[in-house]
Amino acid sequence: MASVFFDVGVSLDGFMAGANRRPANPLGDGGVALHEWVFRTAFFRERLGLPEAGERSDEDALVRRVFERAGAYVMGRRMFDEGEVGWPEAPPFRAPVFVLTHTPREPWVRKGGTTFHFVTEGADRALALAREAAQGRDVRVSGGADTIRQCIEAGWIDDFTLHVAPMLMGEGLRLFDALVPAALRAEPVAASHSRLATHLHYRVLR
Amino acid sequence: MASVFFDVGVSLDGFMAGANRRPANPLGDGGVALHEWVFRTAFFRERLGLPEAGERSDEDALVRRVFERAGAYVMGRRMFDEGEVGWPEAPPFRAPVFVLTHTPREPWVRKGGTTFHFVTEGADRALALAREAAQGRDVRVSGGADTIRQCIEAGWIDDFTLHVAPMLMGEGLRLFDALVPAALRAEPVAASHSRLATHLHYRVLR
Repeated sequence: MASVFFDVGVSLDGFMAGANRRPANPLGDGGVALHEWVFRTAFFRERLGLPEAGERSDEDALVRRVFERAGAYVMGRRMFDEGEVGWPEAPPFRAPVFVLTHTPREPWVRKGGTTFHFVTEGADRALALAREAAQGRDVRVSGGADTIRQCIEAGWIDDFTLHVAPMLMGEGLRLFDALVPAALRAEPVAASHSRLATHLHYRVLR
Repeated sequence: MASVFFDVGVSLDGFMAGANRRPANPLGDGGVALHEWVFRTAFFRERLGLPEAGERSDEDALVRRVFERAGAYVMGRRMFDEGEVGWPEAPPFRAPVFVLTHTPREPWVRKGGTTFHFVTEGADRALALAREAAQGRDVRVSGGADTIRQCIEAGWIDDFTLHVAPMLMGEGLRLFDALVPAALRAEPVAASHSRLATHLHYRVLR
């Protein structure tokens, strides 16, 4: 059966975003530096339509695999709102994205194969729709932190990857916050590093 | 010049110890599980004089290197107090240990080469004494978290290793807590994993 996973960047002190998050500063103070490694990869730059070619590297291959395994996405409303103004006309997903929201809205079809569907019936319904839409490929829980924690607590996550940037944020939005120990038991399955990040892949134990 | 380093176990959510720490429960609730990987290694079991041989593995070699590079230790008072009742007659350090304290005390000579020296003149003095005593080998800042943070903020750390156990603590004593981003910039230099932990080694950038 297809897997449900998340794949996020965090700081050494566990933050996904810095302080002072707002629409004009969605990753918070210092948050862009968390993702410096991914912005250098050829695959990610192509996906976002960024000028200047990126690097072909192990990290490039890693990012490519993450996007290629995902047949659909589940995303929180706040992450969508932040992305709506920032993503290019052809967003990087190129697959159906199911957005958790309380406000009904017609599907929003974008260039390149990305359609945002707005789900008001809860995260379990969004995940069911994403599983169906993924047609046998995996479902990525994009974020934000709240949505990921909700999926962890519900026991829906099969595996996950943390890309740990070698920096401190000090304050901001923590990924693993206020989760009880029983919410997650895992087993490391891979660990690699570059100058800009360590990449830790875990399988969730049931 | 010899290096100053720390080498600690943390949970996925960044805790060095769990909730409810007290002398009878020094690692806090669930804290022993953080260190399960090290208690399986042959070297560590021998150093602590534990019954039943441990495993010869990459992790065994890693622990051996950490102990062999350390020519002296700096340690906080609380960690010493907790260890004083728990360590065997021949503590695992087998080198001089400089304990930060406000209470003068004569050096405490233990079997196997470990002598605890009590330093009341502050962490910089303890570090200077440790550097001298290490005779060209490295100085390990053992802990606890407060002492490590103090050494990070002072800019004394050259490299560090995090052994990340694939579990959540939920609450307890965080390693990287309330540190401003400028306190630490680093570069990953190694990453490996077993079923029980990922081992991340960083070099501090000045």
